[in-house]
Amino acid sequence: MENAGIIIIGNEILSGRTLDRNSNYISDRCSKAGIKVIEVRIVEDDIKVIIKNVINFSKKFTHVFVTGGIGPTHDDKTTEAIASAFKRKIQVNKKAKRLLVTHYKKSNLELNENRMKMAKIPLGARLILNPVSAAPGFKIKNVWVMAGVPKIMQGMFASYVEPKLKKSKAFISKEIIVYKPEGDIADLVEETQNQYLELDVGSYPFYNPPNVGTNIIIRGQNDSLLSKARKYLTKKLKSKDILYSINE
Amino acid sequence: MENAGIIIIGNEILSGRTLDRNSNYISDRCSKAGIKVIEVRIVEDDIKVIIKNVINFSKKFTHVFVTGGIGPTHDDKTTEAIASAFKRKIQVNKKAKRLLVTHYKKSNLELNENRMKMAKIPLGARLILNPVSAAPGFKIKNVWVMAGVPKIMQGMFASYVEPKLKKSKAFISKEIIVYKPEGDIADLVEETQNQYLELDVGSYPFYNPPNVGTNIIIRGQNDSLLSKARKYLTKKLKSKDILYSINE
Repeated sequence: MENAGIIIIGNEILSGRTLDRNSNYISDRCSKAGIKVIEVRIVEDDIKVIIKNVINFSKKFTHVFVTGGIGPTHDDKTTEAIASAFKRKIQVNKKAKRLLVTHYKKSNLELNENRMKMAKIPLGARLILNPVSAAPGFKIKNVWVMAGVPKIMQGMFASYVEPKLKKSKAFISKEIIVYKPEGDIADLVEETQNQYLELDVGSYPFYNPPNVGTNIIIRGQNDSLLSKARKYLTKKLKSKDILYSINE
Repeated sequence: MENAGIIIIGNEILSGRTLDRNSNYISDRCSKAGIKVIEVRIVEDDIKVIIKNVINFSKKFTHVFVTGGIGPTHDDKTTEAIASAFKRKIQVNKKAKRLLVTHYKKSNLELNENRMKMAKIPLGARLILNPVSAAPGFKIKNVWVMAGVPKIMQGMFASYVEPKLKKSKAFISKEIIVYKPEGDIADLVEETQNQYLELDVGSYPFYNPPNVGTNIIIRGQNDSLLSKARKYLTKKLKSKDILYSINE
């Protein structure tokens, strides 16, 4: 099974000012493509830190998704770091330049030196096209490098990255909402997990008194097995007169 | 300066079903306490993985904040992992048991074996009290272990963790909203950064056409220096007739 790691680059997120939504978006899309996300790291805008994490993830995972730090300003250090991680030179990519020339002409903006930074791409990398604001991301080895602005990242991912991923069976979740705190049903949930070792049975309490209860999520790639496991659990709940509902 | 790393434990987040808000909350509170968050990791509910990351972060950072996996169900593995990371035994903590007995009596719920799991704490750890739902977290060495449910985690953090942190000067941000894409002002922003090396000057584009522009965030612990740096930048913007506003 293919797997993935996600690296989110940005001091702004580590400072608590900005909520990261990119890792959630990518994780969700990966689940649907049958790719398991194993780890997410949020790291500083620091070249050495980016290099170290990218090398580490590139060795460990089928795919590495990186977001942030490929813009025109001084704090955009990702391209330099990734080139350095893979010992590649950076140079103006002709196609990237052409995309920028066209885009800035249309937008009546100047393609100045700052913006030309966004046409500089590690040698041998393939461009990840940007349907929103032209400046491309790039892929080098198994590392997909995208913009940090969620709207732009999502545009790149949906229109360019996702079609190139090798799809396998999507991960599906079955959710059972149980109107009891998890301490009351932990046994039944564990029995279900032990009965279906192929699946991942998770227990997630919610706590907004008077609404207190537990979401049980059964997750896997085999739909009929998931239905069986859900039936196994709901039968046990019924036999103990425990209220639940199924979230389809 | 004190720093911190955050470890978020949960398959549910890596699957993309649940958006992590805990790291954002903790990062924001740390900023206000003058503690710099250096890295966030979101990892699987897996004992070996938790052990490895906790040991690594505990060596690197002043504080490690861990959330998730201390409940009563089979997928709650954090306590066991952390005890193992620090080679401690786990046993029923008398105070924790007393808290649970009182809480479940009041709530008319049974303190069954599953729930008693939440009274088992690594030897030598100090309890982190839980003003919301009684079951405590714990602190061992420099590692603060809290619940994963945001409301409960925030209750633990605000009422118990935060008062025990050594406060230093809060990190403050000054935000300048510039009504130009960042490629037009990258020079001015970089000049500001170079002039005030003590501060962290970040450039964050926003892109919701027709609203396209850049948030410049100047961040640091010295308020008057921050004001100076802001003035330095806004003067440059004015001299080029670039529109901006200040977000106080």
